[in-house]
Amino acid sequence: MTKMYQFLVQRSRPFLSQRFFSQFSCASSSSSPPLTNNMSTTSGLVIPCKAAVAWEAGKPLVIEKVEVAPPQAMEVRIKVKYTSLCHTDLYFWEAKGQTPLFPRIFGHEAAGIVESVGEGVTDLQVGDHVLPVFTGECGECAHCKSEESNMCDLLRIDTERGVMHSDGKSRFSINGTPINHFVGTSTFSEYTVIHSGCLAKLNPLAPMDKVCVLSCGISTGLGATLNVAKPKKGSTVAVFGLGAVGLAAAEGARIAGASRIIGIDLNPNRFEEAKKFGITDFVNPQDYDRPVQQVIAEMTNGGVDRSIECTGNINAMISAFECVHDGWGVAVLVGVPTKDAVFMTKPINLLNERTLKGTFFGNYKPRTDLPSVVDMYMNKKLELDKFITHRVPFSEINKAFDLMLRGEGLRCIISMED
Amino acid sequence: MTKMYQFLVQRSRPFLSQRFFSQFSCASSSSSPPLTNNMSTTSGLVIPCKAAVAWEAGKPLVIEKVEVAPPQAMEVRIKVKYTSLCHTDLYFWEAKGQTPLFPRIFGHEAAGIVESVGEGVTDLQVGDHVLPVFTGECGECAHCKSEESNMCDLLRIDTERGVMHSDGKSRFSINGTPINHFVGTSTFSEYTVIHSGCLAKLNPLAPMDKVCVLSCGISTGLGATLNVAKPKKGSTVAVFGLGAVGLAAAEGARIAGASRIIGIDLNPNRFEEAKKFGITDFVNPQDYDRPVQQVIAEMTNGGVDRSIECTGNINAMISAFECVHDGWGVAVLVGVPTKDAVFMTKPINLLNERTLKGTFFGNYKPRTDLPSVVDMYMNKKLELDKFITHRVPFSEINKAFDLMLRGEGLRCIISMED
Ligand SMILES: NC(=O)c1ccc[n+]([C@@H]2O[C@H](COP(=O)([O-])OP(=O)(O)OC[C@H]3O[C@@H](n4cnc5c(N)ncnc54)[C@H](O)[C@@H]3O)[C@@H](O)[C@H]2O)c1
Ligand SMILES: NC(=O)c1ccc[n+]([C@@H]2O[C@H](COP(=O)([O-])OP(=O)(O)OC[C@H]3O[C@@H](n4cnc5c(N)ncnc54)[C@H](O)[C@@H]3O)[C@@H](O)[C@H]2O)c1
Ligand SMILES: [Zn+2]
Ligand SMILES: [Zn+2]
Ligand SMILES: [Zn+2]
Ligand SMILES: [Zn+2]
Repeated sequence: MTKMYQFLVQRSRPFLSQRFFSQFSCASSSSSPPLTNNMSTTSGLVIPCKAAVAWEAGKPLVIEKVEVAPPQAMEVRIKVKYTSLCHTDLYFWEAKGQTPLFPRIFGHEAAGIVESVGEGVTDLQVGDHVLPVFTGECGECAHCKSEESNMCDLLRIDTERGVMHSDGKSRFSINGTPINHFVGTSTFSEYTVIHSGCLAKLNPLAPMDKVCVLSCGISTGLGATLNVAKPKKGSTVAVFGLGAVGLAAAEGARIAGASRIIGIDLNPNRFEEAKKFGITDFVNPQDYDRPVQQVIAEMTNGGVDRSIECTGNINAMISAFECVHDGWGVAVLVGVPTKDAVFMTKPINLLNERTLKGTFFGNYKPRTDLPSVVDMYMNKKLELDKFITHRVPFSEINKAFDLMLRGEGLRCIISMED
Repeated sequence: MTKMYQFLVQRSRPFLSQRFFSQFSCASSSSSPPLTNNMSTTSGLVIPCKAAVAWEAGKPLVIEKVEVAPPQAMEVRIKVKYTSLCHTDLYFWEAKGQTPLFPRIFGHEAAGIVESVGEGVTDLQVGDHVLPVFTGECGECAHCKSEESNMCDLLRIDTERGVMHSDGKSRFSINGTPINHFVGTSTFSEYTVIHSGCLAKLNPLAPMDKVCVLSCGISTGLGATLNVAKPKKGSTVAVFGLGAVGLAAAEGARIAGASRIIGIDLNPNRFEEAKKFGITDFVNPQDYDRPVQQVIAEMTNGGVDRSIECTGNINAMISAFECVHDGWGVAVLVGVPTKDAVFMTKPINLLNERTLKGTFFGNYKPRTDLPSVVDMYMNKKLELDKFITHRVPFSEINKAFDLMLRGEGLRCIISMED
């Protein structure tokens, strides 16, 4: 059934106006401003294009020709330029722990260009460079109005939703059969429709093939350190889990001027990659016969100033909390654990003036805060290149899945136009 | 054995110089500055005076004549003017949960006047009004140097210590038999010797029979709110446990301008007393068939902005954490639980951007911060009178224990000179 669509993909481009393509094709590498009028020739029309469709849990994605409906009120249709693969895509594609929702178009780390906007969208226009984000910012709810929260009531991540908010329908279809969205982004498609509240406007000079990784994991780890743990210059920081999220947390510690960054992982292979990230000490809990929090306290005269947990493992969460110094230590949980996991600690660990926090997307409000993260990269404060270990063309997207399944590398950039 | 000492107490005063007594006797109610030269006639001498000695766990205190040795290096001898009773005294007097240490002189909430200072004490002089505090501030250790911590390495509370730091000896004796100190303060004595790092200098105009309650419980609750939970003006605050500490936390919420203060207690008798404290809603968890955190979330559209737990009960700690709003809620634990208690919660409660903290003595650094708390009282921002429900003369100190055992009132002031 799905094979036949692979023939169609080669025919999808002619459906689009040549003018439209030529205007956008080099936007990510060119510094000239892109199209800024508020209309494109495809505006209001269904766009047929290529998308990588997951038909079944755990089965390779298939590049299909899909039809992408125009954006409805408060929605934006974007042309995806680069996307990358994150564990969350893999997790819901494997669908081991949840109700499967297929067929589905995954993908949530990306950068693209606005093709057209729906009714009521005023802060974005055709040609704007944008980062789609799996969680949004409506600007109106109690969370959006709070200085502290980024957990928008309306646009908070919902992994079980496969449709748009406005009409409960999908904007993707193949021969009239709707294909499910994923976390409101579905970036494994040449075009996708996204709620305008889930799009951060990008500096048009920012290279999209780099900053696309800021859509999810990297911002999550970075923000966990910079926005939540907030280490002071010269402080000691422990990072549990040296995947992309943990290494982004370490990058935050480096930017904050930490004097010592202790990386903890059960997998010693992670240590090699991690050396580029300013980590000063590596600890493998399996090398010790006592709890790792005790090992860290011994290494640091009583505990670290800050710790950031990026594993999703409940034992690591407890260790990350208990390894911070009494009096001032702050631990931040980032990893998403299994449903049954219970965090346990003796209350005295808290009463001795330790702080325990959790964060979601590094506490960044996507629309408000991501432009400044992009600026950090543009100003060379934040290093992103070291997170990008692989690149594949869209046609080879399944290679990105294979790499992640084998635990190789950090981020694989999938280029939509190669 | 203990009875014979009761005869001696009436003879204790003539041992002291009359001049010394007349100079100090009205200091707490007079606004003229007290003696400020750095010598008193008793300086360097052993002072015989009355003290309430606990000879055995749970047995009434006995007023005895004790001998109080002069202060050694970095120590200060003070004349106690007023003291009050706190649950911690009662707990260690009952000695149900710890190794008993008797005979002992309890007492740690008090106000008094410096009688003499030991070698090296430069920031206090004879005649200064002071608040003894069960935890100190050496000024030199990592905690004292940290802006955040008040858990001084040298002078942190140690309930198992019955002697002074400098020489490991007691300054109290009866006929040569040493009597144990309690948490470095032992204020149930007309004179006591205290490490200078455990004394906060008082505004000499502050009435000592009121501000003595700032030595422990009231500052603990107040600071838990003002220094740790930090509610914003207009926010909702839940206070678990309406004893003196919880009501001081509520007083902090009132001062911070909370729009709604929800008091939670299992004992409905506490609600009557609590009405003077600006609490807007009372909740007795026993009135509901669902967890109190759920009841509070229903009352507050998702949870309170801040909660402060002042019960010592582990279930209340968990409820206090889980009743705060996701996105920005902060819960602060104050109560001291049993040794076996384990705090448990699902990590998602943290990942949804809740913060969990614990505090010790309201995060106040005793020497640095208490003067400003006294100023809050002097400026009529902080109300203390409503915490003082009973007064007894020193000779009737056991009445204060009886009141606390019956759960009557909040603070009973024990006047040393009545
Ligand atoms: N909160 C958010 O907004 C958000 C966003 C993205 C990812 N995440 C979560 O962050 C976590 C990390 O993501 P990632 O992409 O870096 O994952 P990853 O799998 O690449 O890295 C996790 C690392 O943790 C290590 N690890 C596992 N258990 C450990 C233990 N007990 N002690 C020490 N190390 C241990 C693994 O060996 C691995 O190297 C995941 O749980 C993910 O779901 C959260
Ligand atoms: N951290 C510190 O520095 C510090 C200092 C002083 C006191 N404390 C602690 O603060 C706590 C309160 O002190 P206090 O003097 O006010 O005590 P208290 O006994 O007068 O008050 C405690 C109140 O909590 C209520 N309570 C008990 N279990 C409850 C539950 N599950 N739900 C709701 N209410 C419950 C009781 O009915 C009581 O009214 C104690 O644990 C004490 O040890 C801590
Ligand atoms: Zn919102
Ligand atoms: Zn992701
Ligand atoms: Zn100190
Ligand atoms: Zn006390």
